[in-house]
Parts: sequence; structure tokens; C-alpha cells
Amino acid sequence: MDEKIGFIGLGIMGQPMAGHLVDAGYPLAVYDVRPEAVAVLTRSGARPMASGCEVTEWADIVITMLPDSRDVEEVYLSKGGVLDGIRPGRLLVDMSTISPQVAVKVADEAASRECAMLDAPVSGGETGARNAKLSIMVGGERQVFDRALPIFGVLGKATYCGKSGAGQVVKACNQVQVALTLIGMAEAMVLGKKAGVDRAVVLDVLSAGYAQSRVMDARGGRLVDGDFQPGFRSHLHLKDLNIIREAARAYECCLPGSALAHSLYTAMQANGWGDLDHSAVVKVIELLSNSAEGA
Amino acid sequence: MDEKIGFIGLGIMGQPMAGHLVDAGYPLAVYDVRPEAVAVLTRSGARPMASGCEVTEWADIVITMLPDSRDVEEVYLSKGGVLDGIRPGRLLVDMSTISPQVAVKVADEAASRECAMLDAPVSGGETGARNAKLSIMVGGERQVFDRALPIFGVLGKATYCGKSGAGQVVKACNQVQVALTLIGMAEAMVLGKKAGVDRAVVLDVLSAGYAQSRVMDARGGRLVDGDFQPGFRSHLHLKDLNIIREAARAYECCLPGSALAHSLYTAMQANGWGDLDHSAVVKVIELLSNSAEGA
Repeated sequence: MDEKIGFIGLGIMGQPMAGHLVDAGYPLAVYDVRPEAVAVLTRSGARPMASGCEVTEWADIVITMLPDSRDVEEVYLSKGGVLDGIRPGRLLVDMSTISPQVAVKVADEAASRECAMLDAPVSGGETGARNAKLSIMVGGERQVFDRALPIFGVLGKATYCGKSGAGQVVKACNQVQVALTLIGMAEAMVLGKKAGVDRAVVLDVLSAGYAQSRVMDARGGRLVDGDFQPGFRSHLHLKDLNIIREAARAYECCLPGSALAHSLYTAMQANGWGDLDHSAVVKVIELLSNSAEGA
Repeated sequence: MDEKIGFIGLGIMGQPMAGHLVDAGYPLAVYDVRPEAVAVLTRSGARPMASGCEVTEWADIVITMLPDSRDVEEVYLSKGGVLDGIRPGRLLVDMSTISPQVAVKVADEAASRECAMLDAPVSGGETGARNAKLSIMVGGERQVFDRALPIFGVLGKATYCGKSGAGQVVKACNQVQVALTLIGMAEAMVLGKKAGVDRAVVLDVLSAGYAQSRVMDARGGRLVDGDFQPGFRSHLHLKDLNIIREAARAYECCLPGSALAHSLYTAMQANGWGDLDHSAVVKVIELLSNSAEGA
């Protein structure tokens, strides 16, 4: 526990993650644009900092957990940011879900200042963050991954995915699969209902056979009940589908299912359903099919 | 085992199913347009018949297992077919996967002759048929379902889905979900590969998390190895996607994911991949992305 950690970004995910690191005995400094988020951690024993570069000055390892690609660029690359005046040998770990290309760009900037960087996005959501059960997908040098492994162990389970950006790529792949599984479940439910079959029957049969998925196990029953409390909010999946679009363009992948998913999650946002669980994509299929609950 | 069963359609699925009924001690008559298929069953003790109506004349319960909607219409409704001169009180069970609307039409014809009918499509494929582990989705009257339950028990596990046609509807729902899960897996794998991440890593991470599915468990490893031995042949999934299209039209469902799946499985057929496992839809995504194996 000799290494001093700086943690930037104390939102719904970052706050419990930083808390676990304090609890594990790491000396921790924190920074967030919202003072009230910083205050929660300082009450737990963390040291408050006034800027990204102040965190970097103090800490051996800097972890960031931020909403989107542009926040990561801002926090690392701007004046007063993490890389501003950074000394060689620091380890930087970005756990935000952002575009692989931005992850590579920031890592290249870090390398030019003789600092190693890992991209380490997570899945498991708020529950995973609170229970320290995150699945962490890591890109960068293998020996740098090994250095960060004890820290990842405090937050969940880490998998080495490959070179810089590979963690973000695997996270994007994960979100492709989950979106299309959800759209399959949505269309199956709407077809069943409009053809006069009880949704619970459709779910029972599909769950017991080849159509089973963890998504269906977790959300199928609530979908039948019309319960779309998040879980994982639709607007965050739309954010990820935008990342997937950018990655598909950058790597020249034609992904028609992902493109459709982007359209359907855009429709969720347009219809005011962005804060519902991402399984609520069924509401778009219902809208298209004039099959809304109660209609 | 007093009830005499007639079995029509002794293909890859029908042959082992009829065999299980003989083994269970049911008196069994069989009919198929291919005499060699009939011969296999007669060697096991079944009684060969020369036409559908001859089967109906002898049997109390008639089971059909046929390729497609038009075969079912032909076998039931044509001159010399199952319903031609049928006596009241016969039980008819169609286990083919066909359009729900055709299932309802044939059941209505049967009802007008005072015969009960069930639609009872299966999932589990050739392996399920051989091992008597089919999942059987049943539509029709509940008390008729109860009468057929001992027979279904010889072939697998049956679930009552609702009124006539409901079995076909649930089977269609199942195939919607499986197709979209497969397309998700395909797009995830192509994105991962073109972005430089080992497919096995993508599979490991996705399988361990929220993206897991039975489809992925069964076929993910073989997809990584480029092994597309069926399993369930693509052209059969295309047939099911045609049924889904017809059902979507009949029940006024807008199912954009299923429509896309139909296009992609049509591309498989067009490119000569109809006899590969349906997980080979990844080859269409590779084709679109110029990312074929070896390319």
C-alpha cells in the first residue's frame, strides 16, 4: 500500500470505487468539479485536491472515472490537467468508457511524457461499483497491467485485453452484444403480445432454451411487468452506441445491427425514455407497432 | 399405450421422433414421400402407409413433422390428405415449424370436421430429437394439450403456450431472439478483430459478463475457431425469418431487427453459406467489412 493514488471523477461510479480504495488502506487524493462529491470522500479520509495537475503532483497512480471522451480529453490534456507538467514514471489509469481512438491518443500523449497509461473501462454498473464486483477490461502494456492489478483487485476482476485501446474495444464489443440481445428480447415480446400470447409464457419458454441470456435472466421478468427502473440507463447505452459508431468508422467495420441499435436508442432519447433502463427499448418497438401498454 | 399413432414426415427430425414413439410401445403407422425413410421405421416395427388419409383412417392421433407451411397445407388439405374423409374425434398434432396463420387455418379446417388440432413446433434440433430432449411449444385447447402430454413426454418437454397458433408464435419469438443474439456476437467479433483484439479475449470477457447467452456458450468458441459445422443450418433460420416476416405482417408488428436479420440470412444464402451453422452470419459481417479469415 505504498503507492499514493489520485482519483478524479467522483460520480455514481467513481464515488464508491474511490471509497473502496480508501477502505483498502491506500493513501488517496481526490478531485471532482463538484465540491460536495469531494466532501463525501474527505470525510472518509481522502485528501482533497484543487485540480488534475495537483493530483498528479502528489500521486504515483492517477485513476479517472469520467462521463465521456471529451471529459477525458479535457481532464488529461487541458492546461492544469493531469498531463500538465507531469513527472516521468507516473501511472495513469482511465476507467471511463470512451472511444478507443481517444484512449490511444491520450495514452500516446502520456507516453511522450514518459508516463504509462492503461484504458480500463468497466461493466457491472452502479451495483458492481458498490459491491466491488466490476468487470474491468484493460488495454496497455502487460507489465503496466501487472503493476495496476492489486488496485483493480480492490474494485473487481480485471482482464488483460491487449495493447492500448483494447480495453475500450472490448467494452464496445460488450455493448454491441447487449444492445442486440435487448432488441431481440423486445421484438420477441412485441410479436408475442400482438399475436395474443402472454408475455410471461414467451419469457418462460425462451429463458429455458437456446434463447436464454444473462440480459433476459436479469431484465425479462421486469420487462413483462413493465418495470424499467434502471439498472443501466438508456442514454448511457446511446452514449456507448455513439462510441461504437466512431469505432466502426475508424476501423472500417460495417455493423448494421449496431447501426440499427443506435437508431432505436436515439428514438428512446427522443421520446423521453433516456433515464429508463436500456431494456425499455421494447417501448420503441411498441411505439412502432402501436402496441403500447394500455393501448 | 392404447392410442394408435400415425406419424407423417420422417426427415432428420421426424425419424428419431417416430423411433422414440415405437420404443415407448405405441402402435405406430408411418408415411413419407420417400420410401427409404419409411423402410427404416418399418424395420423397427412401424406399419407403413400409402397416404395421409390412410394414416388417419387407422390412427387415433396423427403427428406431422414437415419442412414448411406449404407442405403442411398439402399434407392436411389436399385430396388423399390427412383431413380427407377424416372421422370425428381424431387428434392432430403438427410439430413442423410453420407460419402461425397457416397453423390456425389448418386447425380451423380440422375443427370443422370435429377433430382437435395442436400446433407443437420444437426447438433443440437434430440432437434434441435424437436424445428426446426437444422443447415443445404448444398451441390449442388446454384439454387437448393434456391428452397429448404423455406423447410429448416421450419426445421432450412441452409447454402450453395458449390458443391455436400460440406454439408457432412462441417458436417465432424464440427465433427472433436467437437471430439477434447471433448478429450481436458476429458484430462484436468483427469489431474486436478489426480493432486488433484477439477474438478469444472478446469471447472470454463477454461470456463472463452481462453479454453472456446460451448461444454464445454453445457457439462462441467455434466461431473463434472458424468452425461453422451445423448445428442449425442458416437456410433453416432464413425459413424461420420468413415465417417471422409473415407473422409480423399479419399481426402488424414493426420489427426492424428481425427485418435486418432476414436480410443478413438472405445474404448467407446468396453467398452459398446456407448449409453452415446459423452462427456463420459473422461471415456476412466480415464480407461487408472486408475482414474475411485470411484476408
